[in-house]
Amino acid sequence: MKNIQQLTPKEIRVLIRQGKWDKPTAGLAMGYAQANLVILPKTYAFDFLLFCQRNPKPCPLLEVLESGEFRTKFLSLDADIRTDIPCYNIYRKGKLQNTVKDINSFWKPDFVSFLLGCSFSFEEALLRAKIPVRHVEENKNVPMFITHIPCKPAGIFWGPMVVTMRPIPSEQVTRAVQITSRYASVHGAPIHIGEPSAIGIKDLRRPDFGDPVTIKKGEIPVFWACGVTPQAVVMKTKPDLCITHAPGHMFISDLLNEELANL
Amino acid sequence: MKNIQQLTPKEIRVLIRQGKWDKPTAGLAMGYAQANLVILPKTYAFDFLLFCQRNPKPCPLLEVLESGEFRTKFLSLDADIRTDIPCYNIYRKGKLQNTVKDINSFWKPDFVSFLLGCSFSFEEALLRAKIPVRHVEENKNVPMFITHIPCKPAGIFWGPMVVTMRPIPSEQVTRAVQITSRYASVHGAPIHIGEPSAIGIKDLRRPDFGDPVTIKKGEIPVFWACGVTPQAVVMKTKPDLCITHAPGHMFISDLLNEELANL
Repeated sequence: MKNIQQLTPKEIRVLIRQGKWDKPTAGLAMGYAQANLVILPKTYAFDFLLFCQRNPKPCPLLEVLESGEFRTKFLSLDADIRTDIPCYNIYRKGKLQNTVKDINSFWKPDFVSFLLGCSFSFEEALLRAKIPVRHVEENKNVPMFITHIPCKPAGIFWGPMVVTMRPIPSEQVTRAVQITSRYASVHGAPIHIGEPSAIGIKDLRRPDFGDPVTIKKGEIPVFWACGVTPQAVVMKTKPDLCITHAPGHMFISDLLNEELANL
Repeated sequence: MKNIQQLTPKEIRVLIRQGKWDKPTAGLAMGYAQANLVILPKTYAFDFLLFCQRNPKPCPLLEVLESGEFRTKFLSLDADIRTDIPCYNIYRKGKLQNTVKDINSFWKPDFVSFLLGCSFSFEEALLRAKIPVRHVEENKNVPMFITHIPCKPAGIFWGPMVVTMRPIPSEQVTRAVQITSRYASVHGAPIHIGEPSAIGIKDLRRPDFGDPVTIKKGEIPVFWACGVTPQAVVMKTKPDLCITHAPGHMFISDLLNEELANL
């Protein structure tokens, strides 16, 4: 078998579908966009779609499938979202019940699937511009924080925005804003630069999710809206059923990150 | 009474609400964004919201109100979309049935209202950059054409994309692309530049809606996705009931065009 890092998105999806890869997808199919997954019964679909429309920074929609549809049409032409993600979380009334390798046995014809952009896409662009991405350097998960910024509510859905933090050398902050502004469909420009307490973060050494990372002298903490927000919100508002990818175990699309850039 | 051109958006909305202005809104409240309106019963709302998500260039959502809600929260804090538009069209099963000055007597608690961006916003930006906008110069309606580009279908909704055409001096086409790219939420960058037949347009002198305009020597026809698309699609797919603004009679928001720019 070839090293998995050298495989195409399609080849990796086949491995995942066959149950041969159930680990995180960071570093796979470099250059291609990966996506967060949220599946909800149709009864919640309008509210959640409206929530994403009102909160495009934490919830940037890449593709929404119609009720019962499990094949993507935009992110890939031969993917099956019931099997092509390494690991799924099944939540009932906001509580994690199972983590499974495929959701064939859970699938219902009224399920609506939402695929949301992932910051892997803009991290690659930052690295290409020689802007450090500390958690990648330190081989950690990105640090994530629950802020006191409320998302705009929609129907039953509401909750605080979750952000990721990347320490950026002060002389490169402007460039980091410019680069991530190009990627509106993968969280886009930062939502905050500098003082963590201004957005309700008490201690950068204690993230709510992920790992703490080193902040060097002369670096500014920069905060981007995070794809964990919709999951946090879904968990808070407790719909009867919600299926998501397991964090870090993303959907790998056939779309190049470059195709997602707005300019 | 002050000249209406000098009034604020709020003052104009009050006049409209009182039934004192039922004419088109072009040229009013310059600098402020105007919006297209589509109202549908809740049963069609998910499909139409999904249609807009899949077709952001013809259907750029500025605000979607929840079921039964008639007050905007984003575009204005004191507007009532049942009364604050000069003229409404009521369509039943795709056919225009009435044109009315307010929709209080038609309002139902299951109505969902969609407000979509309007090209007035980017025309102002073009004019500011000294790029001619011919139909404004000639005091006409913008010429609109039905193309052979299909919108991406969603639920019951499908149909061809409608475009507007503006002739641009060839040396200014690049600048026109750059300027309108800044305004993704009001149709954004052109969808086609040059040869009309490539998108199914036979004769630029015979638009499907609006008026023909002069194309001077050295000018290139440039085509932008048009806010008439959702209405054309709604009419084609014949929902039981649909209420829209009457063409040209837009909702005037309190949002500056500049606030809608993505960069």
